[in-house]
Amino acid sequence: MSKNKPELAKLISSKPAGDSSKWIGLKKLTYQDPNGRVREWESAERLTRSEGGVDGVGILAILRYANKPDEILLQKQFRPPVEGVCIEMPAGLIDGGESIEIAALRELKEETGYVGDIINSSPIIFNDPGFTNTNLSLVTVIVDMSLPENQNPVSELEENEFIECFTVPLASMAEEMAKLDKQGYKLDARVQNVAQGIKIAQDFKL
Amino acid sequence: MSKNKPELAKLISSKPAGDSSKWIGLKKLTYQDPNGRVREWESAERLTRSEGGVDGVGILAILRYANKPDEILLQKQFRPPVEGVCIEMPAGLIDGGESIEIAALRELKEETGYVGDIINSSPIIFNDPGFTNTNLSLVTVIVDMSLPENQNPVSELEENEFIECFTVPLASMAEEMAKLDKQGYKLDARVQNVAQGIKIAQDFKL
Repeated sequence: MSKNKPELAKLISSKPAGDSSKWIGLKKLTYQDPNGRVREWESAERLTRSEGGVDGVGILAILRYANKPDEILLQKQFRPPVEGVCIEMPAGLIDGGESIEIAALRELKEETGYVGDIINSSPIIFNDPGFTNTNLSLVTVIVDMSLPENQNPVSELEENEFIECFTVPLASMAEEMAKLDKQGYKLDARVQNVAQGIKIAQDFKL
Repeated sequence: MSKNKPELAKLISSKPAGDSSKWIGLKKLTYQDPNGRVREWESAERLTRSEGGVDGVGILAILRYANKPDEILLQKQFRPPVEGVCIEMPAGLIDGGESIEIAALRELKEETGYVGDIINSSPIIFNDPGFTNTNLSLVTVIVDMSLPENQNPVSELEENEFIECFTVPLASMAEEMAKLDKQGYKLDARVQNVAQGIKIAQDFKL
């Protein structure tokens, strides 16, 4: 087993952040409900949002081969907030001034080494809108596995990033996610719900 | 226009919560990376999680008719953190001691008036695992629209809940979500990604 395996990471301790938080702010919101009554609500917000108002990109990278069915590119990464190794899609925060499309292709290249072509960018989507304003655009990318530059992809990770890439067949993504859950991995909702949508379309013959 | 329309709500102001937050806590996590190095991370966490370790349920409610194609039940709800009216699925927090399945059918009845049958409960899924530990189970429910109890569904909302239900055809969910985005509604990632999964299965003939 490589010494960089995400499974080797572990949570040591947890304490209230007090006034020391650098990345997340807690906000008290005052709003008027549809009846005109003034109420309060709490929200957790990133302190790093760039001018465009979009935090990040998620990349649904579909690997296309000449001689076998399409696969989806997934990642294993230790995530302290959920105290475990998560199954996610390639993703990242948008740099200041960067477009969604440029950020998606940059993050894909940095995290996985692959180059791809964008076929769709979703509207801005909100991860958990009753709890936080964090958001992203889901960008669907085709990775042509016959291209010379996709033969030996090399990631360019930062020294605090430990990401392991793997693939599963796109057509059986839901079954593969269920297996990963049984193995103890934590599932990212955004990945799992794409899998669930594919499964529903298949089961309901949509 | 009804006086309870979610579009009538609005954000008035926003300020740092300081020590006054009741629902969300900010945590500083210490963890060991895969190389053994000790690092810190921040996490936003619900203070209301029940013993089971699962915050809530999302309900993918599919309305089945005798004489027309399946529809999916969606909601419009003003969400202060995203400063707008969100397109979501019926959802709610799990009461202490409640099972995922009981919570899903209870929330569906309370928020929409419908009764349904569960066909699938997802593993626990995490909304934004690099940012927060909030999670849910996605429960897929079939609502038989020929049943007498589903003819005139009446919701039982709390006095601070303003939810408007509507439906779109399941087979064209992605197109309907795109229209709602253009109309200025904010899209919940968990709903949009199911729509995107259905669209991918259709386009790629999975």
